[in-house]
Amino acid sequence: MLALHPPHRLLFGPGPSQVEARVYEAMAKPLVGYLDPFLYQVFDDVRNGLRAVFGTKNPCTLVIPGTGSAGMETAVTNFVDPGAKFAIFVNGFFCERIAEMGRRHGAQVVRAEKPWGEVFNKTEARAFLEKERPQVVAFVHGETSTGAMQAPEAITRPAREVGALVIADCVTTLGSVPIRVDQTGIDIAYSCTQKGLSAPPGLSPFTVSPRAVERLNARTTPNSIWYLDLKLLMEYYDGKKYHHTAPVSMFYALREALAAIQEEGVEQRFARHLQAHTSFVRRIEAMGLKMHVPAGQRLTTLNTPRVPEGVDDAEVRKQLLDEHGIEIAAGFGPLAGKIFRIGVMGPLATEQNLDLFFQALGKCLAIRATA
Amino acid sequence: MLALHPPHRLLFGPGPSQVEARVYEAMAKPLVGYLDPFLYQVFDDVRNGLRAVFGTKNPCTLVIPGTGSAGMETAVTNFVDPGAKFAIFVNGFFCERIAEMGRRHGAQVVRAEKPWGEVFNKTEARAFLEKERPQVVAFVHGETSTGAMQAPEAITRPAREVGALVIADCVTTLGSVPIRVDQTGIDIAYSCTQKGLSAPPGLSPFTVSPRAVERLNARTTPNSIWYLDLKLLMEYYDGKKYHHTAPVSMFYALREALAAIQEEGVEQRFARHLQAHTSFVRRIEAMGLKMHVPAGQRLTTLNTPRVPEGVDDAEVRKQLLDEHGIEIAAGFGPLAGKIFRIGVMGPLATEQNLDLFFQALGKCLAIRATA
Repeated sequence: MLALHPPHRLLFGPGPSQVEARVYEAMAKPLVGYLDPFLYQVFDDVRNGLRAVFGTKNPCTLVIPGTGSAGMETAVTNFVDPGAKFAIFVNGFFCERIAEMGRRHGAQVVRAEKPWGEVFNKTEARAFLEKERPQVVAFVHGETSTGAMQAPEAITRPAREVGALVIADCVTTLGSVPIRVDQTGIDIAYSCTQKGLSAPPGLSPFTVSPRAVERLNARTTPNSIWYLDLKLLMEYYDGKKYHHTAPVSMFYALREALAAIQEEGVEQRFARHLQAHTSFVRRIEAMGLKMHVPAGQRLTTLNTPRVPEGVDDAEVRKQLLDEHGIEIAAGFGPLAGKIFRIGVMGPLATEQNLDLFFQALGKCLAIRATA
Repeated sequence: MLALHPPHRLLFGPGPSQVEARVYEAMAKPLVGYLDPFLYQVFDDVRNGLRAVFGTKNPCTLVIPGTGSAGMETAVTNFVDPGAKFAIFVNGFFCERIAEMGRRHGAQVVRAEKPWGEVFNKTEARAFLEKERPQVVAFVHGETSTGAMQAPEAITRPAREVGALVIADCVTTLGSVPIRVDQTGIDIAYSCTQKGLSAPPGLSPFTVSPRAVERLNARTTPNSIWYLDLKLLMEYYDGKKYHHTAPVSMFYALREALAAIQEEGVEQRFARHLQAHTSFVRRIEAMGLKMHVPAGQRLTTLNTPRVPEGVDDAEVRKQLLDEHGIEIAAGFGPLAGKIFRIGVMGPLATEQNLDLFFQALGKCLAIRATA
């Protein structure tokens, strides 16, 4: 095999997002064994750091040994019993994935639907949940496929009124957008490491409210998935019982990413991302492009401007990658060819990096405007 | 948070095992996006490198995005239909785990049992399989809990005679012990990255024979686990359809570990490990200790000498760790307090490193002999 020489990209896609040198360096530090006391210190640091970004005091805050989708499946398999009514707010790709997992686990899936890019208000959510009275509800906080952000309270308040647990997919929000799990009343939230947290992909941060832990402990049917059994995972993280061998290097990376967030300050980091988003929208609109999602409902870490009339989005993406080393992503499903998906996260969420990005994008679009 | 300073350990435990600097360095190289053409080159290199160590031409050779236990669960959930008869050869901890997963997935689990540390011969296996006539059979190639190695043909030949698929757990053998999947007739094999392959933990190499792929494609019941659905994973690795975001940095590490194996030569590496094992046994017996597993049935990557009479194994392990930075592991279950588990893998499988290890072990045991 030839030596490994990855191209240097500026990752303005939906994730993996840009990672700072210190995180790469942490990942390359020497491994310790899976029972080493040092590893348990790392677990503690990571769990505390995650509580800060989730906005929670949940003792059950831990890490699922897989990507964001493993977190999603952990939420479904542990909290949605076979036969249970599972209500899903569907307005994009990842809600469809939750619904698919629900079906596979034998749940009775009911859906509230909206076009890709729209969100639900409290009145709509209440009407749906009062009609269906589900045991568990799921929604996606930041929809990576559309660029829309769902206000948690619009779902959590009416869900609590009917006694349902609420699962929130926070894959594209954790670390760069406030979630405030305790304040908003989310019961189960999961995320990934490679978007708002600015670490490499591979792990799924996870948090569970005390009332959801109670519900889990009262469950009598065994979880069909051993690998994602939260009771076993909790015992492992609490040092009581071996489960799997933790991906040690990924934990080093996640710990370092959380240390960087702590140094910047969680609220300061949220503010920086909001500012970068505001700047992005101002700049893109100044170029004559329109945002797909209305103001006030936008996912601030992932911008989805519409592809201008007559422009081939694949050509633009290819030119950005080939000539500028910049990765952005395409729309897909009902939004294929209609939007760009442009992430502005972590170290890239600065005016200087936006200058760089917009210079490149400007060149790629200008060629097409004159052609 | 304080800066991350992991202690430097010599990892003579069952895994994670020692990792070379070049693998750490590869892991710290810059990320690319999950659809980047470069990542697909890395996938191809990894899949080819894995075929070489598995000893297979299986087109379906890929990587499960989780640890070795995720590989185990992938094998069970994709190939053991609910209600199917699933025969397991049980002689240690990890066979019990396979049985547990089988039960959770609704299989009819039947067991052939032997004490921890023993293995099955072909006559025993044939008698059991002819009586039970299962659809699927599972065994553990190298039992990490006991130090015994099961000869694959003793199981695969009689299993083929009754038309059963064979799952082999190769978690502690892949990369340092020959498996020869095609030659021995194993249908499904999985492993981890942090033992015989000398990479950090986090991924599970996986291979499937063409006849098992046919069986999978003919299956009509949907897989209950979306994250570990092999049909979806195959589409993803073949570039047809998005599934999850691959743990890119872990793939860089695995690719580099496989490149190092390729450079050494797969057969040369197997020979080096066998030689180190032979040397280990000679040295440990010269110290008066006895091996738990009879010669000819020993897992050559993980040695399990018996704890000498009157010696507290926990004290020895603690002293090795605290004074020499050497990690070894304890026995557990029926072997708790009775054996040490000492891995000699990857860069540590040399005479020079065995000198170092035995000097330290000698000191720890001598103190106790005179006490």
